[in-house]
Amino acid sequence: MSQEYSIRQLAELVGAQVVGDGEVRIHALNGIEYAQPGEITFVLDKKQLPLLERCRASACIVPQGIEYGDLPLIVAEQPSVAAAQIHTILLHRPFTASGVHPSAVVGNDCTIPEAVSIGPLVCLGNKVVLGERVTIHPGVVIGDGVCIGDDTIIHANVTVAQGCTIGQRVILHHGVVIGSDGFGFATDRLGRHYTKPQVGTVRIDDDVEIGANSCVDRAAFGTTWIKSGVRIDNLVMVAHNVVVGENSILVAQVGIAGSTTLGRNVVLGAKAGVAGHLHLGDQVMAAAMSGIHNNQPKGAMVGGAPAFEVKSWGRATAAYSRLPEMVKEVRRLRKEMERLQALIATTASTEEQQ
Amino acid sequence: MSQEYSIRQLAELVGAQVVGDGEVRIHALNGIEYAQPGEITFVLDKKQLPLLERCRASACIVPQGIEYGDLPLIVAEQPSVAAAQIHTILLHRPFTASGVHPSAVVGNDCTIPEAVSIGPLVCLGNKVVLGERVTIHPGVVIGDGVCIGDDTIIHANVTVAQGCTIGQRVILHHGVVIGSDGFGFATDRLGRHYTKPQVGTVRIDDDVEIGANSCVDRAAFGTTWIKSGVRIDNLVMVAHNVVVGENSILVAQVGIAGSTTLGRNVVLGAKAGVAGHLHLGDQVMAAAMSGIHNNQPKGAMVGGAPAFEVKSWGRATAAYSRLPEMVKEVRRLRKEMERLQALIATTASTEEQQ
Amino acid sequence: MSQEYSIRQLAELVGAQVVGDGEVRIHALNGIEYAQPGEITFVLDKKQLPLLERCRASACIVPQGIEYGDLPLIVAEQPSVAAAQIHTILLHRPFTASGVHPSAVVGNDCTIPEAVSIGPLVCLGNKVVLGERVTIHPGVVIGDGVCIGDDTIIHANVTVAQGCTIGQRVILHHGVVIGSDGFGFATDRLGRHYTKPQVGTVRIDDDVEIGANSCVDRAAFGTTWIKSGVRIDNLVMVAHNVVVGENSILVAQVGIAGSTTLGRNVVLGAKAGVAGHLHLGDQVMAAAMSGIHNNQPKGAMVGGAPAFEVKSWGRATAAYSRLPEMVKEVRRLRKEMERLQALIATTASTEEQQ
Repeated sequence: MSQEYSIRQLAELVGAQVVGDGEVRIHALNGIEYAQPGEITFVLDKKQLPLLERCRASACIVPQGIEYGDLPLIVAEQPSVAAAQIHTILLHRPFTASGVHPSAVVGNDCTIPEAVSIGPLVCLGNKVVLGERVTIHPGVVIGDGVCIGDDTIIHANVTVAQGCTIGQRVILHHGVVIGSDGFGFATDRLGRHYTKPQVGTVRIDDDVEIGANSCVDRAAFGTTWIKSGVRIDNLVMVAHNVVVGENSILVAQVGIAGSTTLGRNVVLGAKAGVAGHLHLGDQVMAAAMSGIHNNQPKGAMVGGAPAFEVKSWGRATAAYSRLPEMVKEVRRLRKEMERLQALIATTASTEEQQ
Repeated sequence: MSQEYSIRQLAELVGAQVVGDGEVRIHALNGIEYAQPGEITFVLDKKQLPLLERCRASACIVPQGIEYGDLPLIVAEQPSVAAAQIHTILLHRPFTASGVHPSAVVGNDCTIPEAVSIGPLVCLGNKVVLGERVTIHPGVVIGDGVCIGDDTIIHANVTVAQGCTIGQRVILHHGVVIGSDGFGFATDRLGRHYTKPQVGTVRIDDDVEIGANSCVDRAAFGTTWIKSGVRIDNLVMVAHNVVVGENSILVAQVGIAGSTTLGRNVVLGAKAGVAGHLHLGDQVMAAAMSGIHNNQPKGAMVGGAPAFEVKSWGRATAAYSRLPEMVKEVRRLRKEMERLQALIATTASTEEQQ
Repeated sequence: MSQEYSIRQLAELVGAQVVGDGEVRIHALNGIEYAQPGEITFVLDKKQLPLLERCRASACIVPQGIEYGDLPLIVAEQPSVAAAQIHTILLHRPFTASGVHPSAVVGNDCTIPEAVSIGPLVCLGNKVVLGERVTIHPGVVIGDGVCIGDDTIIHANVTVAQGCTIGQRVILHHGVVIGSDGFGFATDRLGRHYTKPQVGTVRIDDDVEIGANSCVDRAAFGTTWIKSGVRIDNLVMVAHNVVVGENSILVAQVGIAGSTTLGRNVVLGAKAGVAGHLHLGDQVMAAAMSGIHNNQPKGAMVGGAPAFEVKSWGRATAAYSRLPEMVKEVRRLRKEMERLQALIATTASTEEQQ
């Protein structure tokens, strides 16, 4: 099972430098508290160096400008990126196709390469098209006409509804729902609702990951679109016709309402909500629990609900916690003001009398 | 597959008027950006009219008082309702029963009409009763004694636990859980919890839709009740013994705590939360992210957490974003007050000396 | 099916006293609105006593110091605990093993005692170890190497991913996901994300309950750990490497970010969020919708987002709703201040002129 590399090989693979013995053999990466001989660990800044003292790792990935005794080091400009890449390299195993489990139910006219692993109790609809090396775990339901790209992994109990398209190297975690109907209806004067049929679809581009039990609704018309490199955490809600730009990050329990579009590398903190029909420009960042009700220009950083500029929000939250004192201070000022006014009125009338 | 209507027929079916050639044949409805010849589209107000210029649709649903060149129109008092109804008519297909898939597991003493479609890998418990034309998609688990009304659709990987009742024309989207245990326990003086058995059930009335991965817990005793026409979006939490009144709307990620009751046509915006044992009257509306901690009378409109009257809340949020300036202003007032007080004290003592 | 006890027997089993006829036979517990002859009900305080007038129950559990006519009573120091225990006793049935359903798919090298109930369409991976009297409902997927303790119940459509450990008497409600990957990645200077492999696991100790569609992510390294007696409601998110201390309570839609640790008997209200890498001491309580961004000492009670001490928060929320008036009052003070200043300046100059 275990595959070994020298740290020189690993450094080369990720464009980093070696300090010390480059021939040290490594078969795994591990956290600094857990690492054993034969494993490599990593530190991201100088503060973590004391933890290395008790660490049994055979090598360490470090940022530039760090030295540490005799321990062989991989020195990387971005050590967290290097660690993620090296960990991925060390865990990599060639794809082993288990084929289609006999308990899986496969519809008509599906395109299924030989090199796939379709687990037990999976259901594929009709005209499903699978790429090479697709893995579908048990209990997954794939609707009619779904296309899934090469090397994509779909974890247990996921549903991908009819007509949706999933790119390459996508990972859908357990319980995800792709392509449920958007929440659309018209309401008459008597308050009765008429469902608007949701006839669009969902397109998920390459290298996207979607966390457990998150939902991406199909478009009313057209496409709900998650662009390449996007990372979505657990229990996130993406409504119909939303577009999430490349490499954007949606932390757990975020919700995005219908037809809102996000630029590239947008980051929405946990539980943030975005109203419908908005646009958030590239690199917009929203603090956890933000409630965004307005378009945001490129690079805007916001917090609060309703959300506004994050530094002002920080000051407002600080003031908020002292609001009761301010209420009292304003009351005191009012009383003193009235006393002064009375005093001056008296003085004035006294002076007049003089 | 395709079913055609003249726009005159469609207008009659939804109680609207035709302007222009009523014999134009239509086979689909589409959004204004997508519509093709043979399709009908819709505009909801005058602002959208310029979009019609490039639209290739053969007809358009419009509100009253709008004219548009030679394009055949269906003029409706409530064009969004008419569009939803016409779209539904155009998509309607007669139910085709696929029967019970051989991979489905059906318990004892179930009542299953011939005209149903039970998909692969579905599990029905004992004594399940299905209405006519029920559709159950793959991976669904239906517990013992569940009753499901005519024409109801249950999407993939839904669970309906034992003893729950689902009405007619209900749609449960993928991953929904109906009838999980309510969150009830008693805690002793040592901080240990004793589960309160949840022996009630869930009743979902006709024409309800529940969004992906939403949960409705069973009652402790009695019934958690979703009344007819209710629309629930994705990832919503409805706790034990809650009653949701007719046609109420729960937007995504809403949570309602135990024993709270909602009147008719209540609207809870996304991520709103309602505390337990409250009553929200008919037509109560809560802004997204509201946290409701008090009973609300009929028609109340609230926002904020804790929630209060929505207009006051709007003003408070505006003031909130300017809180830091107000803090400074109060500080300035304090200093000026002290200067004045000192000045007056001096003046007074000077005068006394005079 | 029905098992009867005298109220004397029940009182003895829970360490309570009987007032009145201890030989009354009881076969069920029910809510005060629902109870029938042969059933016992409960009241938790004196205010509920009037409801007993129309109640048909044959006995009642009451707190100390309450009398009620001729009705046989079980008098308990903690009546809600006694009611939960008595209800559980009355519902208790000996475990009936149904074995492994023929439609279930079982991997290699599993350890499965005879006394288990594995429902239809369940999938167990390889090397799964089940305790005695484990119940696994339909549609559940259990990954390779998972260990499940005695008397644990796993409801329909749950997923427990590879390598996770589940204790004894645990209840996982429908749709729960245990062991999905933590949300970890490194981002390079171009904004591209590199997934950090999540090679840790999840450990769930004895007597834990986890609500429908909640998610507990596996650790990056090491263990995400839910300690004994914890109660988690629906749609809750527990991130990688979180530790939840004994008997803590996470109400619906709570989210806890990575590496945060909770002490014992922590209570997080509905929709509360906790940032990553924090520690909440024993008995910390957070109001619903709190957003916790700082460590909290033992027994701290907080509210608001960002959260602070709950009483101050209560006062701040009250002040908040009156913010618009305060804005006006400060403006009035400003004007009066300027008037006074002008007046005094005039007086001073007049006096000088004198």
